[in-house]
Amino acid sequence: MADTLKGVGVSPGVGYGPALRLARSVPEPPEAGHSGDAEAETARAAEAMERTARELTERGARAGGQAQEVLSAQALMANDPSLADDVARRIREGANAARAVSDAMAVYREMLASAGEYMAARVTDLDDVRDRIVARLLGVPVPGIPDSETPFVLVARDLAPADTATLDPAKVLAFVTREGGPTSHSAILARSLGLPAVVAGPAADAIADGAMLLVDGSSGEVAADPDPAEADRALARDAARRAAAEQSSGPGRTADGHPVPLLANIGGPKDLPAAVDNGAEGVGLYRTEFLFLDREDAPSHQEQVAAYRAALEAFGPGAKVVVRTLDAGADKPLAFLPPPGEEPNPALGERGLRMMHRHPEMLSSQLSALAEAARGAPAELSVMAPMVTDAEDAEWFTARAAEAGIERAGVMVEVPAAALRARHLARDAAFFSIGTNDLTQYTCAADREVGGLGRFQDSWQPAVLELVATTAREAEAAGRPCGVCGEAAADPLLACVLVGMGVTTLSMGATALPMVRAALARATREQCRRAAEAALEARGPSEARAAARTALPGLAELGL
Amino acid sequence: MADTLKGVGVSPGVGYGPALRLARSVPEPPEAGHSGDAEAETARAAEAMERTARELTERGARAGGQAQEVLSAQALMANDPSLADDVARRIREGANAARAVSDAMAVYREMLASAGEYMAARVTDLDDVRDRIVARLLGVPVPGIPDSETPFVLVARDLAPADTATLDPAKVLAFVTREGGPTSHSAILARSLGLPAVVAGPAADAIADGAMLLVDGSSGEVAADPDPAEADRALARDAARRAAAEQSSGPGRTADGHPVPLLANIGGPKDLPAAVDNGAEGVGLYRTEFLFLDREDAPSHQEQVAAYRAALEAFGPGAKVVVRTLDAGADKPLAFLPPPGEEPNPALGERGLRMMHRHPEMLSSQLSALAEAARGAPAELSVMAPMVTDAEDAEWFTARAAEAGIERAGVMVEVPAAALRARHLARDAAFFSIGTNDLTQYTCAADREVGGLGRFQDSWQPAVLELVATTAREAEAAGRPCGVCGEAAADPLLACVLVGMGVTTLSMGATALPMVRAALARATREQCRRAAEAALEARGPSEARAAARTALPGLAELGL
Repeated sequence: MADTLKGVGVSPGVGYGPALRLARSVPEPPEAGHSGDAEAETARAAEAMERTARELTERGARAGGQAQEVLSAQALMANDPSLADDVARRIREGANAARAVSDAMAVYREMLASAGEYMAARVTDLDDVRDRIVARLLGVPVPGIPDSETPFVLVARDLAPADTATLDPAKVLAFVTREGGPTSHSAILARSLGLPAVVAGPAADAIADGAMLLVDGSSGEVAADPDPAEADRALARDAARRAAAEQSSGPGRTADGHPVPLLANIGGPKDLPAAVDNGAEGVGLYRTEFLFLDREDAPSHQEQVAAYRAALEAFGPGAKVVVRTLDAGADKPLAFLPPPGEEPNPALGERGLRMMHRHPEMLSSQLSALAEAARGAPAELSVMAPMVTDAEDAEWFTARAAEAGIERAGVMVEVPAAALRARHLARDAAFFSIGTNDLTQYTCAADREVGGLGRFQDSWQPAVLELVATTAREAEAAGRPCGVCGEAAADPLLACVLVGMGVTTLSMGATALPMVRAALARATREQCRRAAEAALEARGPSEARAAARTALPGLAELGL
Repeated sequence: MADTLKGVGVSPGVGYGPALRLARSVPEPPEAGHSGDAEAETARAAEAMERTARELTERGARAGGQAQEVLSAQALMANDPSLADDVARRIREGANAARAVSDAMAVYREMLASAGEYMAARVTDLDDVRDRIVARLLGVPVPGIPDSETPFVLVARDLAPADTATLDPAKVLAFVTREGGPTSHSAILARSLGLPAVVAGPAADAIADGAMLLVDGSSGEVAADPDPAEADRALARDAARRAAAEQSSGPGRTADGHPVPLLANIGGPKDLPAAVDNGAEGVGLYRTEFLFLDREDAPSHQEQVAAYRAALEAFGPGAKVVVRTLDAGADKPLAFLPPPGEEPNPALGERGLRMMHRHPEMLSSQLSALAEAARGAPAELSVMAPMVTDAEDAEWFTARAAEAGIERAGVMVEVPAAALRARHLARDAAFFSIGTNDLTQYTCAADREVGGLGRFQDSWQPAVLELVATTAREAEAAGRPCGVCGEAAADPLLACVLVGMGVTTLSMGATALPMVRAALARATREQCRRAAEAALEARGPSEARAAARTALPGLAELGL
């Protein structure tokens, strides 16, 4: 008989396969000395270092590209002869192998950490190498994504962005995490890969490695060792659902024909093919910071023009392409634009447009590259600023855009103050685009990176829905379009609720487009309105979801 | 002729005196070797160390109490013979005196930093000693609050909490800072000391040491080298104002007799005499975390009962005493209650009530000590929880209070979600108490600790005022009292606006009570309502202030 665990479904679909757990931390090696045979202990340490280096090299060869570079560099660290000498010396002095490796690498770590910003960023890679060697010596699981030859359901406390670098989507059938919420990295990653996922399931800790799991990413149910026939039926239903979603095509519209343009969130030209393949009608969020990250200088004018023009040429004439100007700071620091001081809470610091107040030349040069890219391009360029807080911000940004010759200049609504004062921002902003991830983070004062705050990291929190509704209402009153480009738009049920609140466009990771298109096609605008009203009346996120589901009966055939 | 600088007035009153600048950082000593005479260089270093030790000892003797302990320990560091030996050795090897001191102390620093939590906390003290010695050797100003025999106007980029420890309020006439906003540490400190202060004045950088400054903490104007007769007139007007404020007495009420109980914010029994002296009608915010900070274990039941009972006995029968349960985490970590993991943004992490979900026994034991303290006490105990986010939080906390036998259990409103959903929280919460400092921080997504975000750290931001108005309105509809216990309540002009929004009690640092009482006595409830409406319509904080001032003409005689 199956044990069932209940969490929050954050990425729809059904996955079925054996559980494999992501091991998080390696215990501190004991202080106790070794058995007395220093030579044997040294050989043990050397073997662990060599095997770790070999494994890293092999994984790099399989991964290719940038991941290979990182993994090869790590293999070199593990194989460093002077590290081996230092370890041998410490073992001669009595340390056990794990302790010796850990202490020897701590010295390296100190050196790296103090050798300037670039090297300091390598500390994480070094720590990972140390953990791998030490885990091997202690006989505990190596931390990180398990390396399996056969597909599996990944079970974890939570997934960090770093965990995803070496994740092979072809091997992972679904995610189940103990912590996190709908805007956590686990959830976002699952949706972008189109993998079923359940988060915030406390019982995930009790799942044994190898148990067969049936994961339903809509209902949030995870069954352990279910009847295989039942699992097959669930997979068949899911396949039918996916087929229904894939049959939806053409521009986004409700069942009664109200158009809701469906746009793609992109990080650069490399994301355009998937957007086009999934029928995006344009770009609703071009995250330009990816052009600026991990480099020593800002990209040149010509480099920027080319990257922007690719998006403006990917869609038909008149398509919408909305570019967000540089959103640096907080969890996206730029090497050439450091924060002005120590920030105890970077998410509440000088990020986004705030940093541009300090570096107006950076904003102007980006806007001028955008204006040049738009000249003669088939699509319609709009620009918008991140982290706009008050009317003065909106006025300042739209004036800078006008100076560069860009008329369609709007603002991201991700700070609660901006949503609350949408009426005043509408004087200058040509449109609004609601970033539900940050808006949820600030409205509930709950860091997206902290696993234990899952309940508050949910855009279904009625307080967040209220701010979305306020923004959409004020936008309509002022005759301004109002889109949503946060994760909320990728949730098919929530997408219908947003349309019911008056949101005019939805932008999301490309893989989410078919399901959202299919959901909208199964709901009338009036049903969406009633779903929105019911969700706003709810006491909490689960009630809001349930109320919306009841008001949108047509979505049941998509399993939503 | 006077040059005038304009900033934001954050603490009313007029100060007049010579400018003295807080020097922030000491430059890195040059790498260059010394002149060649190692003996002379060693003598120079020894003299700087001795003079620094002597100066620290003298300042300690003047300060007395806990400050003396810290300063004496610092003097010992400066006088440490093994430090002197290490410096002499480095000078013999060619280093100049400043470099030798800096490098020798870096070794100590490393040792301290790695010697456990208690010693690590001493690193800041050691850095301060090093800066003092090095500054002396380089001939640059010693960092920190200037040590002057005569009173002065303190000019700084911003003030950190640490700067305040050695500050002698009798010597400081006013503050002027380049950064910071009304909720910054500079502003809070100024108000608690009753000193005039102007923040966010970019021109503060251009003020020369010794220039005579006339600081108006209401208008935000700072005149450099004004006509002395004009300065005298401004001081006389200010004295008349203060006299008017001090004449106000009795319970808080508007000009037309509407009662607005005025309560004190306290951190423990030591703050009670000032509360009583300034006519507080009770306690609106008892910050109990101060009982728990800087110690190895939680305070015992009896210790807690005594600390709570002191407050419950300080006022007459029926007085209100509102105790906030433990608000640990973020910038107030507890040694015995560490956060569950690394928090990239502690202000958005597991703080306040969120931590109590993990440690319910800690909350229960505090509530049971509170219930015992209230038994037979003359005052009426209420309890409230910090960082309440949604209806589920409110329900959980009030149920815990009921279990302990405490009926009057309410919630702090400092997370935007709580304000937005006040209607739903009112089902369980017996009252609301709005914490405007954190509410402003989250609503504007602007860290209170970051100097460059002053505009957003202002409770006059209309978005913040809207959340206050929403909370007060929903409280009234549900028949629940709604207080304000953040810094906003201590701003006499804003206090009237809050009353106009329907706020029922105001709680603040005791020294702010007389001026707020005087302001309320000069405004009718209808004027307060009109001021609130006008402030809510404003585009930004300055316009909101100006509109409120116009609607409250009676406050002009208090210079507000």
